Amino acid sequence: MNPIERLTDLFKEFPGIGPRQARRFVQFLLSQQPGFRGDLSEAIKHLGTETAQCKSCLRWYAKGSEHNGLCSICGSSSRDKSILFLVEKDADIENIEQSGFRGLYFVLGGTIPLASEAPEKHVRLREMLKRVEADAAKLQLTEVIVGLSATTEGDHTRLIIQEKLRPISEGLNPVKGSEPHGASFKISSLGRGLSTGSELEYADPDTIASALSSRQ
Amino acid sequence: MNPIERLTDLFKEFPGIGPRQARRFVQFLLSQQPGFRGDLSEAIKHLGTETAQCKSCLRWYAKGSEHNGLCSICGSSSRDKSILFLVEKDADIENIEQSGFRGLYFVLGGTIPLASEAPEKHVRLREMLKRVEADAAKLQLTEVIVGLSATTEGDHTRLIIQEKLRPISEGLNPVKGSEPHGASFKISSLGRGLSTGSELEYADPDTIASALSSRQ
Amino acid sequence: MNPIERLTDLFKEFPGIGPRQARRFVQFLLSQQPGFRGDLSEAIKHLGTETAQCKSCLRWYAKGSEHNGLCSICGSSSRDKSILFLVEKDADIENIEQSGFRGLYFVLGGTIPLASEAPEKHVRLREMLKRVEADAAKLQLTEVIVGLSATTEGDHTRLIIQEKLRPISEGLNPVKGSEPHGASFKISSLGRGLSTGSELEYADPDTIASALSSRQ
Amino acid sequence: MNPIERLTDLFKEFPGIGPRQARRFVQFLLSQQPGFRGDLSEAIKHLGTETAQCKSCLRWYAKGSEHNGLCSICGSSSRDKSILFLVEKDADIENIEQSGFRGLYFVLGGTIPLASEAPEKHVRLREMLKRVEADAAKLQLTEVIVGLSATTEGDHTRLIIQEKLRPISEGLNPVKGSEPHGASFKISSLGRGLSTGSELEYADPDTIASALSSRQ
Repeated sequence: MNPIERLTDLFKEFPGIGPRQARRFVQFLLSQQPGFRGDLSEAIKHLGTETAQCKSCLRWYAKGSEHNGLCSICGSSSRDKSILFLVEKDADIENIEQSGFRGLYFVLGGTIPLASEAPEKHVRLREMLKRVEADAAKLQLTEVIVGLSATTEGDHTRLIIQEKLRPISEGLNPVKGSEPHGASFKISSLGRGLSTGSELEYADPDTIASALSSRQ
Repeated sequence: MNPIERLTDLFKEFPGIGPRQARRFVQFLLSQQPGFRGDLSEAIKHLGTETAQCKSCLRWYAKGSEHNGLCSICGSSSRDKSILFLVEKDADIENIEQSGFRGLYFVLGGTIPLASEAPEKHVRLREMLKRVEADAAKLQLTEVIVGLSATTEGDHTRLIIQEKLRPISEGLNPVKGSEPHGASFKISSLGRGLSTGSELEYADPDTIASALSSRQ
Repeated sequence: MNPIERLTDLFKEFPGIGPRQARRFVQFLLSQQPGFRGDLSEAIKHLGTETAQCKSCLRWYAKGSEHNGLCSICGSSSRDKSILFLVEKDADIENIEQSGFRGLYFVLGGTIPLASEAPEKHVRLREMLKRVEADAAKLQLTEVIVGLSATTEGDHTRLIIQEKLRPISEGLNPVKGSEPHGASFKISSLGRGLSTGSELEYADPDTIASALSSRQ
Repeated sequence: MNPIERLTDLFKEFPGIGPRQARRFVQFLLSQQPGFRGDLSEAIKHLGTETAQCKSCLRWYAKGSEHNGLCSICGSSSRDKSILFLVEKDADIENIEQSGFRGLYFVLGGTIPLASEAPEKHVRLREMLKRVEADAAKLQLTEVIVGLSATTEGDHTRLIIQEKLRPISEGLNPVKGSEPHGASFKISSLGRGLSTGSELEYADPDTIASALSSRQ
């Protein structure tokens, strides 16, 4: 295949990029100085070797910014280790950090499609359970927040994860059987209500009911 | 002015209707049978005489559907008279009813623009205070929900109303002075959080913080 | 039915108005002075009696603005009677007038849905043919522009109308048979090309081909 | 700077890509196999060395697909060399080819912003004039189509280019002076009209006037 079409095909794999924009990207690169293409090529080539995935939360961080072999959040001594926030993706963490949350995170890596019969293909279920179990065993965990989007797929994923977490939260070991390990924690989910900018007239009854029950 | 332009001008006063749609409305009416125009003309003419404004919540209802001289909600004996929900407009009530709320309402009639120096021009402040005071005097009020939209103007209106309500909520009479009347109630507002369909990645920090604090 | 619901139902008949906006219209009217409702009611009531449909082009005009018993365009002596522009609706005429066209019009009253087996239910076919035939008989017609939108339904309607016009345009009488009446005219349609604001990158091949063939 | 941020910054340079999508691209790459990143890195690195810019029309093509040292279109013996189509960018050519055009092209490389005082910074003016002059000297040029988008900036660019072309089109040499070179050609632009899907009611008067003058 010719180099223009080959690169167009690679860009078409990018999230949200169709054939037309993939072609525009290639035209853009053709019109740039060779230096820009060189920088981009190097940055992509070294992305894997210059970053590492945090062993604890599984998000990606730049090598050199680690703390005790972990990412800056997991390695920090000032975070509240009793609350674990399960999120869909790395970008959610940046957003949540701005809200003032000071617990720890775990990145699920995706959500589970409604029709899927293999949840573990979309979400790091096994790694998540192992992490939660380890934290529970260390007796430091008091709450796991299943922090998914308020969408149909987010709700579906949340229900599956809550069910998987329940035995551990009650102090049972779901892997090795019903042998109790002595620690229990709460499983919570994000509160529903009016999000900033939403109008009462267009809110659905569920959102209004949530906003009523969480009124203050 | 000619009748087509006169009617176009009247339709242009309708909320959300520009010149083009106003003209389409007139063309639509021209293309209808005289019977349709007659029905519409009569319905508009008699709207005022066949409806009444509920003396208690100030929403409009069809004459003949009143209960004890009030609208069907205010006149019902099965509603919880201890909770009063302040809403912007009649249409909000229909929406809130579907969420299962069973208290009473009061229609403010609008929101207060940020730049306004005369809040009472936009919102039925005086009538609202009188209603709340009367309910408080009857010792039946335990909570007033200031149920406005999560918009900038909604928040602005909510803050003004909460300030006006505070003296009454503490058992003081804001009209006749500081003479206590013996009843106090809570002032609340709707909970914020993720509304149905909203994604964590696009939520603002305030909404996330609210969703965190109302997690369950 | 109660007057609020009755009026809401009537507004729901308006083009482009759903249940929610219909309710907003009623609430808007309830909040207006009785004088506004009275004016609107009267304007709608008298719309039929104060307007007339031009006998020649079938568009609506205000009584009193007629010229020789026709609308201001059909009744004008300065228009070019040799070109007849068939349009979908009255509003199109206002728009076309601004382009400088100085011939005459005929309002078809709609377009023909693709699935329709009764074109005459959607479009004033019989009246149109009668008008064209009369103009052709007076030997004053040289061209009929089938001026419909460049949409699928517009194209479908144009093809049906062009086929109906063809026998008359060749000087044959489609109603009474093949008896020639001695006048022939051209049947034309609006040129395709780039419309203001459209980008070459997003234009479809048909539009580009048209823009090429009508280049100047 | 860390590798994640560095790559995010490079993607932010891409056309139409904001900070959020740039971050999503990096996350996407982090989640891919090293092989994908390697392929992408190589494809970008070699884009410059494996492609060439056609000396005649200045569009980019894959090395190895050239015909007589030119791109497949310029090097083809079956194209009509008497018509030259000036386009903004490479992608326009793919689109125009589907309309059946069989002349030659020249890629201007952009459009001229309204406020610009240095048109040659945005458009390959000098190269274009040289190309047109050479074609005119070879006595093979009969028409130059200035094929820009029907946007404000496209029109502005078209007017500037038409003015630059005029002296050459009249057989004068704009570079060396008024010495005639014996060949003249027509300067044309794409026809305006209703583009596919556009409705008469929303068309501007210019578009309607064009559609009328190019009616057929």
